[in-house]
Order: sequence, then C-alpha cells, then structure tokens
Amino acid sequence: MPTLHLEMHPGRTLEQKRAFVREVTRVTVETLVCPPESVDIVITEVPRDAWAKGGKLLADG
Amino acid sequence: MPTLHLEMHPGRTLEQKRAFVREVTRVTVETLVCPPESVDIVITEVPRDAWAKGGKLLADG
Amino acid sequence: MPTLHLEMHPGRTLEQKRAFVREVTRVTVETLVCPPESVDIVITEVPRDAWAKGGKLLADG
Amino acid sequence: MPTLHLEMHPGRTLEQKRAFVREVTRVTVETLVCPPESVDIVITEVPRDAWAKGGKLLADG
Amino acid sequence: MPTLHLEMHPGRTLEQKRAFVREVTRVTVETLVCPPESVDIVITEVPRDAWAKGGKLLADG
Amino acid sequence: MPTLHLEMHPGRTLEQKRAFVREVTRVTVETLVCPPESVDIVITEVPRDAWAKGGKLLADG
Repeated sequence: MPTLHLEMHPGRTLEQKRAFVREVTRVTVETLVCPPESVDIVITEVPRDAWAKGGKLLADG
Repeated sequence: MPTLHLEMHPGRTLEQKRAFVREVTRVTVETLVCPPESVDIVITEVPRDAWAKGGKLLADG
Repeated sequence: MPTLHLEMHPGRTLEQKRAFVREVTRVTVETLVCPPESVDIVITEVPRDAWAKGGKLLADG
Repeated sequence: MPTLHLEMHPGRTLEQKRAFVREVTRVTVETLVCPPESVDIVITEVPRDAWAKGGKLLADG
Repeated sequence: MPTLHLEMHPGRTLEQKRAFVREVTRVTVETLVCPPESVDIVITEVPRDAWAKGGKLLADG
Repeated sequence: MPTLHLEMHPGRTLEQKRAFVREVTRVTVETLVCPPESVDIVITEVPRDAWAKGGKLLADG
C-alpha cells in the first residue's frame, strides 16, 4: 500500500500505461511519503458498452 | 457521483444493458435527488468460472 | 448476484436509502430478469475531503 | 455476505481456482462463523501489463 | 498480489479478524502457490443500513 | 473517467491529500491525454486492523 485502481476506456497504448504508472508512482511517493516499492497500481479498461453516464451507454453516445 | 458498479454474469443483451442503465439512472435521480449527468454506471461481467457461492464455482453448479 | 456498489456523498436520509435500494432492485429485476433476492446493494458514503474532481477535493470547492 | 474479491495474475488452472474457493470458503465459515451459502467469491485476473509495482508494469519486469 | 478484499457486517472481534487473515493467507498460499508475503487482505465492514438484499436494507430486516 | 481509487493507511494530513489529488490529476492528464475535469479520485483510508500482509494484521506488526 498505497494501492491505486484506475478505470479508463480502452485505447491507450502500452507506452501511455508505462508513463502513467511511472509518473503516478513518482508523485504518490512525493506527496504521501512512502517507498516506491509500496505503490501498487491496477489498471482496468472499461469498454464503451459497459460505462454509462446520464443513463446512456457511452457506446450509444 | 453517484457512481454505481454492477457485477453480473455474462449473457445479457446490449438492449438489456441499455434498459438497465436508463432505468437505474432514472430511479437514482428520483431517490437521491441529483442531476442525471452526475450518475455514472460501470458494468462488469463476471464469468461463471470466476464466481463462487458456498465454496463452489458457479461453472461447476 | 447481480451485485451493485453505490458510492455517493454523505447526507442522504435513511428514507432516501430505503427508496433507493427498493427502486434500484425493482428496475434491476425488470431489466436483467433475475429474482429480487439475488440483488445485493452495498452503499459507501465518500466524505467530501476524500473525493476529488479536476484535481481538487470537493471539500475545497 | 461475506463477499470476497480476489485479484491475481492469470495462469492458475481451473483446478487451482476450485481449490481456492473451496478452502477459502471453509476457513471463512470457521473463523467468521457464517453459513457456507452466504460466502460469495469473485475472482479477477489482472494481466501483467495492467499491474504495476514501484512504478513499473510487471510485464516490463 | 494476490490481493483479497473482504466485505462483511461489523461485529466480529479482533481475534476473529486475526484468525481470518491467518487462515485465508495459509490456504491462498497452498492453492495458488505464492509466497505468504505476497498476500494482501483488506477488510471492509459494511453497516446494516448500507447493505440491501431483495430491495430491503438489512437494518430493516 | 478516468476514475482512480486510492487505498492507504490513515494518518496523512489534508494538505497531503490536496497535493496528492492535484499531482495525480496533473500526470494523469499528461499521460492519458484527457481533460482535468474528467479525472475523479476517491480516497479510502484503511485502518491498520483491517489490512493484513503475510497473514498478519498490520496492527499486530
């Protein structure tokens, strides 16, 4: 711990995920004051037909 | 917010998911008193070999 | 299952929570076609100093 | 309830998942004192390019 | 990882939680074949007015 | 979306949480390429008697 769960839409590249976990870990270490090895991040990609806002699936946008 | 996460088995049609998010958003807005655009719903489909009840995977029914 | 997790701010009355779980269960049963007893709902109240949007805690308006 | 969510890497066999849910349900019933039928377990397999530790995706080991 | 999240009602003693995490970790190590130190368990106690089944809060039992 | 859930131990100051959500939002916007207003962060503080590692509650050190 700290443990972070990210939910986002699919479509980001592996390079973007790499940059995300590197940078989020860096600022987590700085602001929460903890060793880098203690930071776990789990990424979940939510398809557009599985996320709704305002009562409408994003796929139906 | 409010944010809702739904876990269910696979097998529902897109039309059922559409009806689910429309109706759940409607009753959330009515009962919790919030704007429709503030309601997010994320649907996760859990395969039958990944859900257990009473110590048995549902796939083993 | 289906299982629903709701995250919202504190401040709703017990009567609102009662209406929420009754109505959400009703429309879940109708749209996903499942028995009422199979629907679990868990409510989490997230304090305003524990939810951020746009990089700002809601408590900081 | 009780409800358990397990996150782990892919690669375990169906037989391992079967043993896991059987044994975890057994010790849950013993230690928390509840009927076996009340124990739900949901398993999520997190790919190695979706889990980071110390700022690095496990896939980049 | 593996990481486990447990949701249950309040009311268990510290001794029960101790036994739960010890036993669940033991059988997780045996069935999933992983080192004990890799097993994290997070316990969330859900109040009876925040859990509904069949459209009714458990508090209204 | 993207939505982030952070689990950590209690004890951080409000100022640390403020810095955390500001910085994590900033690097999320940069790496995932999304508007700041789309980034939600929810913080959960997990007490030391509710988190176990290696079969032991952290409270039991």
